[in-house]
Amino acid sequence: MRILSGIQPSGIPHIGNYFGMMKNAVELQQKGEAFLFIADYHSLTTTPDPQALRDLVKNMAIDFLACGIDPEKTVFFRQSDVPQVTELTWILNCFTSTGLLERAHSFKDKVAKGFVPNNGLFSYPVLMASDILLYDANLVPVGKDQKQHLEITRDIAQSFNHKHGETLTIPEADIRNDVAVIPGVDGQKMSKSYNNTIAIFGGKKAIRKQVMSIVTDSLSLEEPKDPTDCNVVKLYKLFATAEEVAALEDKYRGGNFGYGHAKQELFEKMWDYFEPMRERREALENDLDYVEDILKAGAQRANEVANQTMDRVRHAVGLR
Amino acid sequence: MRILSGIQPSGIPHIGNYFGMMKNAVELQQKGEAFLFIADYHSLTTTPDPQALRDLVKNMAIDFLACGIDPEKTVFFRQSDVPQVTELTWILNCFTSTGLLERAHSFKDKVAKGFVPNNGLFSYPVLMASDILLYDANLVPVGKDQKQHLEITRDIAQSFNHKHGETLTIPEADIRNDVAVIPGVDGQKMSKSYNNTIAIFGGKKAIRKQVMSIVTDSLSLEEPKDPTDCNVVKLYKLFATAEEVAALEDKYRGGNFGYGHAKQELFEKMWDYFEPMRERREALENDLDYVEDILKAGAQRANEVANQTMDRVRHAVGLR
Repeated sequence: MRILSGIQPSGIPHIGNYFGMMKNAVELQQKGEAFLFIADYHSLTTTPDPQALRDLVKNMAIDFLACGIDPEKTVFFRQSDVPQVTELTWILNCFTSTGLLERAHSFKDKVAKGFVPNNGLFSYPVLMASDILLYDANLVPVGKDQKQHLEITRDIAQSFNHKHGETLTIPEADIRNDVAVIPGVDGQKMSKSYNNTIAIFGGKKAIRKQVMSIVTDSLSLEEPKDPTDCNVVKLYKLFATAEEVAALEDKYRGGNFGYGHAKQELFEKMWDYFEPMRERREALENDLDYVEDILKAGAQRANEVANQTMDRVRHAVGLR
Repeated sequence: MRILSGIQPSGIPHIGNYFGMMKNAVELQQKGEAFLFIADYHSLTTTPDPQALRDLVKNMAIDFLACGIDPEKTVFFRQSDVPQVTELTWILNCFTSTGLLERAHSFKDKVAKGFVPNNGLFSYPVLMASDILLYDANLVPVGKDQKQHLEITRDIAQSFNHKHGETLTIPEADIRNDVAVIPGVDGQKMSKSYNNTIAIFGGKKAIRKQVMSIVTDSLSLEEPKDPTDCNVVKLYKLFATAEEVAALEDKYRGGNFGYGHAKQELFEKMWDYFEPMRERREALENDLDYVEDILKAGAQRANEVANQTMDRVRHAVGLR
């Protein structure tokens, strides 16, 4: 079973990224043949600064390897190292009605937010379909927000197979309904766009400062506190054992335990949790050739699969 | 100066194709460095039958070589042998507003005619822009109906260069206003969709039959005739010298000269005109390996230019 994930590089990863996505990508390595790519072609739809894009891609590669992506287990590569995906996109464009794309939520949302849509943004679901179909992926883990894109992928593949016979593998969505929403320092969903994140990598002082800025109520140190709805406790649960969480909750209820103490415990727990990844990250940053070699090896394997699919597709449509 | 033309394969060429396009492509060989490609990716927008597409492409290659395309002078290739054009299409999608594409006449016309538009049809002008920009074309001969697509190409290239510096060559349109409309057998513009064509290649009997079906008035053999507005004379002018035309016109005016005689003269003139091309065509049909070798050699040269452009483009946008 081949499991495919693609992720757009988006800067310094935070706790929300880690528990919402990176940890999952690492766990997938045990579940099947994992393909994971850095979606740099997708990034172009928002026409980023070229140097910023290069840095984002490099850092995403380092971050994922630091967090446990094992290149022996995961085919880890840059999307643009397999340009066949754009050829498949052109071909699949001809099997995709514009009406289907006009109904895509993410496109409608972006237009509603005032983006002047370019044709990359509009055609985004076709590139996503090509990403999946090029690699004969069986399973695609997606958040609820990506569910429709996966349905579009299945529609396009079925429409192709209907016309040309069984050529493309119809993928299944693995919709993770159980992903806990990670609260940011203000209690909203942690997200760069809300500016409420706690980074997983970076200087001790800076990260401690982010933890200390978590919003709580204003009960004084002496007063007993209710742990049930506290952002600090919610985040603490991500890193601590059940016993450790129970101990923290007891301190809350006992009084004479301030939010500053709780945040300090959270910070230490978190700092220790990411310690081995932080060390790996530092080592990788000092060996960029090794990182590049991993991506190149991943691309080579991805190219083999891509070429097989494109042979079938080109033959099916009459380009060969 | 590099001159680029791309043509969608569309079946047995007729006199309208020959004088409207093929003859021009042959003449371009003297005017600059000519690139000519068979636009098979474009053909996919109407999802043809795969075997029909393969045959169309093969026959178009033979037809153009038979009509005088010299592979020593023209870089002659299949569009899909340089798949980099689809990568450039993806990148340029991100520099093309959907509004620009919605305003394309050819898209609006097709929708008006009841086509359910697919995203290939919608994105067609971006692929066309990539065809031109990938090869740093300076001049693109286009009919009036393609003028807007060339303007879109310039818009996209300028928008790219504005963001990333001088990367793409801005092409000039060479709009052929002087192309005479070739009348079909019914007097309308000769076009496969009107079913009024006279083929340039094929059996003597079949082509003679097409010529004999040219619509004229119903004056009897004896009566003098006016050559001014006669479809037979219009077509005769394409093949004959000024003296020969004058001689035919005299016979019209003199009477005792029927339309059947005129058509026979036209047929003979035309048959002789295409004689050497017909012979070349037969030789090429019996040496398909040679035809394939020509296309492969053209693709190799086209790939060299394409790779240089893509190096610049990928670097400019930050994919490298």
